[in-house]
Amino acid sequence: MTIVGRAHAVPAVDISDGDTVVNVKKRVLIGPEQGAPNFIMRLFTLGEGDFSPYHKHPWEHELFVLSGEGIVKGCDGETPVSAGDFIFVPPNEEHQFWSSGKEPFEFLCIIPKGEEG
Amino acid sequence: MTIVGRAHAVPAVDISDGDTVVNVKKRVLIGPEQGAPNFIMRLFTLGEGDFSPYHKHPWEHELFVLSGEGIVKGCDGETPVSAGDFIFVPPNEEHQFWSSGKEPFEFLCIIPKGEEG
Repeated sequence: MTIVGRAHAVPAVDISDGDTVVNVKKRVLIGPEQGAPNFIMRLFTLGEGDFSPYHKHPWEHELFVLSGEGIVKGCDGETPVSAGDFIFVPPNEEHQFWSSGKEPFEFLCIIPKGEEG
Repeated sequence: MTIVGRAHAVPAVDISDGDTVVNVKKRVLIGPEQGAPNFIMRLFTLGEGDFSPYHKHPWEHELFVLSGEGIVKGCDGETPVSAGDFIFVPPNEEHQFWSSGKEPFEFLCIIPKGEEG
């Protein structure tokens, strides 16, 4: 059965560790619970100055920025992003995202099923 | 290398056939050309009254509505959607999308690599 839902009605989980991840909220919109067979759609919300870790892993990220302003840091530098931008982080590529504006920085991040982060 | 781009700067392709697909514009944001290994992010834009075919296929859709208003038709009925809604169409499930508002109805649609539609 087709599933339709409001993204912001999905409960957010704060995944901060207070060190490498600060005040990052995550919602799994379409994942194993909904029966997704191959890839997982998550929504991330970062407040002013919040950031994700600078790290890498063997799986890719496909992102789309929904609101706010942020910076994508990769091995080749820092790139400002805003609503309407897409971002592809290939497997094994160092990356970090942080919120650079006053408004919440929100983006979708899709990963292969079975992976995390 | 991480790839960043403006979604609307990607050239749109009109995939209408004038019959089952009317005035549907498609942009592949992250696909084989960008090196996506597993799944493809596309952006669809439908004008007033435009629609995609009522059909099914063995692969899933994961969608996120960016703007406008639309209807998702599935085997279990019709559901109105708008910006901020996510939609999961499981494999082999009949589905159709149409634009029901005045503004362009835009959504991301992610599918497994190697599939189309």
